[in-house]
Amino acid sequence: MTTTTQNLKIIPLGGLEEVGRNMTIFEYGDDIIIVDMGLQFPEEDMPGIDYIIPNTAYLKDKRDKIHGIIITHGHYDHIGAIPHSMKRLGNPPIYTTALTRGIILKRQDDFPEAPKLDIRQINKDSKIKLGCFNIEFFHVNHNIPDGVGLVIETPVGKIVHTGDFKFDHSPIGDEPADISRISEIANGGILALMSDSTNAEKPGHSISEKDIQDNLEIIFKESSGRIIIATFASLISRIQEVVNLAEKYDRKVAVDGYSMKMNTQIAKKLGYIKAQKGTLIKINQIKDYPNGKVVVVCTGAQGEGNAVLMRIANKEHRNIQIQKSDAVAFSSSVVPGNERTVQGLKDILWRQGARVYHYQMMDIHAGGHAQVEDLKMMINLIKPKFFIPIHGNYYMLKLHGEIAESIGIDTKNIMVAGNGNIISVNQNSIELSKEKVPANYVMVDGLGVGDVGQVVLRDRQSMAEEGMFVIITVIDSKTGKVRGEPDIISRGFVYLRESKELLNQTREKVKKIVEQTSSDEHTVNWSYVKDNIRDKIGQFLYTKTQRRPMVLPVVIEI
Amino acid sequence: MTTTTQNLKIIPLGGLEEVGRNMTIFEYGDDIIIVDMGLQFPEEDMPGIDYIIPNTAYLKDKRDKIHGIIITHGHYDHIGAIPHSMKRLGNPPIYTTALTRGIILKRQDDFPEAPKLDIRQINKDSKIKLGCFNIEFFHVNHNIPDGVGLVIETPVGKIVHTGDFKFDHSPIGDEPADISRISEIANGGILALMSDSTNAEKPGHSISEKDIQDNLEIIFKESSGRIIIATFASLISRIQEVVNLAEKYDRKVAVDGYSMKMNTQIAKKLGYIKAQKGTLIKINQIKDYPNGKVVVVCTGAQGEGNAVLMRIANKEHRNIQIQKSDAVAFSSSVVPGNERTVQGLKDILWRQGARVYHYQMMDIHAGGHAQVEDLKMMINLIKPKFFIPIHGNYYMLKLHGEIAESIGIDTKNIMVAGNGNIISVNQNSIELSKEKVPANYVMVDGLGVGDVGQVVLRDRQSMAEEGMFVIITVIDSKTGKVRGEPDIISRGFVYLRESKELLNQTREKVKKIVEQTSSDEHTVNWSYVKDNIRDKIGQFLYTKTQRRPMVLPVVIEI
Repeated sequence: MTTTTQNLKIIPLGGLEEVGRNMTIFEYGDDIIIVDMGLQFPEEDMPGIDYIIPNTAYLKDKRDKIHGIIITHGHYDHIGAIPHSMKRLGNPPIYTTALTRGIILKRQDDFPEAPKLDIRQINKDSKIKLGCFNIEFFHVNHNIPDGVGLVIETPVGKIVHTGDFKFDHSPIGDEPADISRISEIANGGILALMSDSTNAEKPGHSISEKDIQDNLEIIFKESSGRIIIATFASLISRIQEVVNLAEKYDRKVAVDGYSMKMNTQIAKKLGYIKAQKGTLIKINQIKDYPNGKVVVVCTGAQGEGNAVLMRIANKEHRNIQIQKSDAVAFSSSVVPGNERTVQGLKDILWRQGARVYHYQMMDIHAGGHAQVEDLKMMINLIKPKFFIPIHGNYYMLKLHGEIAESIGIDTKNIMVAGNGNIISVNQNSIELSKEKVPANYVMVDGLGVGDVGQVVLRDRQSMAEEGMFVIITVIDSKTGKVRGEPDIISRGFVYLRESKELLNQTREKVKKIVEQTSSDEHTVNWSYVKDNIRDKIGQFLYTKTQRRPMVLPVVIEI
Repeated sequence: MTTTTQNLKIIPLGGLEEVGRNMTIFEYGDDIIIVDMGLQFPEEDMPGIDYIIPNTAYLKDKRDKIHGIIITHGHYDHIGAIPHSMKRLGNPPIYTTALTRGIILKRQDDFPEAPKLDIRQINKDSKIKLGCFNIEFFHVNHNIPDGVGLVIETPVGKIVHTGDFKFDHSPIGDEPADISRISEIANGGILALMSDSTNAEKPGHSISEKDIQDNLEIIFKESSGRIIIATFASLISRIQEVVNLAEKYDRKVAVDGYSMKMNTQIAKKLGYIKAQKGTLIKINQIKDYPNGKVVVVCTGAQGEGNAVLMRIANKEHRNIQIQKSDAVAFSSSVVPGNERTVQGLKDILWRQGARVYHYQMMDIHAGGHAQVEDLKMMINLIKPKFFIPIHGNYYMLKLHGEIAESIGIDTKNIMVAGNGNIISVNQNSIELSKEKVPANYVMVDGLGVGDVGQVVLRDRQSMAEEGMFVIITVIDSKTGKVRGEPDIISRGFVYLRESKELLNQTREKVKKIVEQTSSDEHTVNWSYVKDNIRDKIGQFLYTKTQRRPMVLPVVIEI
């Protein structure tokens, strides 16, 4: 047994230096709870990586202490690491709301080798006790329903964790965030507030979903043909808005896209999407209705290769091809990194005759995160002693800290931490421990979790930029001479059929290098020969092309 | 000699399906002129490509007809293909303004094998005659000085080409766009207007550079330490603004970054940057002044790997390391595709203690292109019969067409064309010819122009995603058996040192495949053996890892 400390440890394993991969440990003495277990999508310099999850090494010998995992809402940056990490953590119980539970269970089906989950459903009025922690919940808005914030009563005081949130006073298919309850919670005195920083850079208030619905209505009014609305697969409220408008304008709604159909099914079953009987139809039924009677809601607003909108644009969709009278709306922001792809997709759709609507033209998307004024309101409601900005790049946390300071939180009580930091809190102080826990990226690629590291990634990048060039030389060990012609395999460097002259020159150079090097010495040092081939041929190819393919010499002695 | 046609042909070789690579041919009978000759930066699926230039194949047999090339301004998307394409076009004279000329000549120095250019300097009052074309100019604003629009008098009527433009009624270091002159030009009757569509999606008016200067001034007022301002290397007016503010607030300005220093030198020499004696200092002199007396203007606002700001962040800059009191301003928009890199860079700078200012927090950048209301104004001033939106993705052209329609241009007189289209114009009609000219991407990679095609790119992408796996098998031709162990070279697939078991299993499988296949037949078909290795080992590796490296078998018979 380890010694009991007087301090609460808050250890973010992810989510504090990026948008995504949210996972936080709360540890007091022998009791541990975890909040969220998300993934992050790979960056541009990580070709082939499926996604990135938190490193859970710190918990390896502490499995028995983990009383439970609380999931704030059903987005992949909060649930995505569950299939990969639960087994390592001894599969502790998960506590979450109904919709989030449905989404987690559905995703788990894709991982047959992952353990069967023990999910215990809570609602905003639940109170749970996990070890020394008493946890209550409060309802917040986000762009998926059923999100909750947490009040964690710990031996050192109460901690409020907002989850991802915004305030929406006229949400669609959801209740407004429960401001009275949040205010009530604060009455007991809150030691620390951990609050969502994703939009700390955006001034003002976030837009209400009601306004989005009103703007989408303009498209319904203007369009005589089909309406195709692409958005995020988990944006249940947007789907509800489309259903509302479809019912008002006498259209049928077909939902398309694997994950969107799944989410819609779960949400409908649990009552988070409400539709009249007959409003929702299958995608293959749209042909049975006139164009003016159809709306399609689908995935692909980010230009993802396999999503519905891209398949439509590429004429690979079984049921939909763009027609002249179609209206296509991108009801989503563009995730950083996808801009050019989305521009290209918009081009194709316009070219095929659709009228394309986009959030830059009118407000047909609202983000899910509180902006500056809302962040201030949360801090004012909670009136915490300590403030810990969470969820976002470092600069977002830093800006959120400045926001807190601007409305009266003492600078020394604001803790901008990083992944792997141990935030040590008691009634009187908040500080970072000197030691850190491992919090590096764990990359998932196919079946491999964590087996792709910097070496493999660097090789991938290098081959992508410059290609590779394998030279296979068979050497007669008796004469030290090259037998026949060296074989060359090259990909991604030059178009070989048009580079015969370059290849011939290279072969001649290889033969010379081998013969010079091997005749220099009594016993031939083959690794020296290989180094020589690599360096000299590398230099030769650079001089000829100003490219530096990865040169890989193979010497076979017979 | 070809037959003279009654129609003017306008042939865009680039710039109509992308932002960049602008180049347009005007052809009437035996007379050809060209407007602009730009490059485009590669897309995400083009690893290793330096940039993309227009295909000039259509002009191959028409060199003698080219009377000249007119360059509207000095940005790379208008001048960047000059070093690569001029020789193929017979090096015709280039007509452009002083600053643009300086930039073109300076860049040409980097290409010693390119021909010596014949550049004839014009100004906004010049009139030139090239074959049957009479060309005049008018001053426009953009985010580089000395940009011009063109009035091309052709046998069928006058064509106005705006170049890239915006209207700025209070520019810095520049005159306002010459609205009286534009209005005067239109008095003669304009057959067709070709107008910049880059910002056709953005409502309202663009911001004036004076407002940007006022906002930058806030940073000067707030900062007691050094101020580091990163922007585009060619944004001369921004550099002028910084010089103005530095002189007001008694600071010295150091310009850093290869291309920015070059542009500043040229602009200063030609009088486009005005600074008091002693205001501009060298970067290695900043240590001689107190922090509060220094401003650095530098490259790297896009997070480019080798630019100044990234070198500062990576502690690789010889003269600057971030200090606690530094203010760093990103005085630029983020070019689509660079968002995550820029976020990462901002994080590093914040973390090192700088206060970071960004255009999302305050208006410290203005784009160079007219927005919707300005576009309307240009159309209203010119009152053309025909309208041809240029410069932008197809959807931008299309939106610009709608803008023209909304203010009274007849739909049938609006021509939204694509690259390689031949727009055929006379007094009465505008139409697209059925035939097209080649206008595909020509990729530049190192010394190669156009030698990297789809095959090489596909290989690069594939190796980046999944890596490669070369299997070298030496076979005894007498026995048909594998001699020794097959050699495996793999990169970007799995970390080899931790995958010994997988490699051993693979070697065993290869031996079996070879022995089975070669014993099947009397004369061994080695390409059949290789196909077998590729397929079966590919399948085996996929089963084990769910990754599909490029499998390259080599069979050596001895």
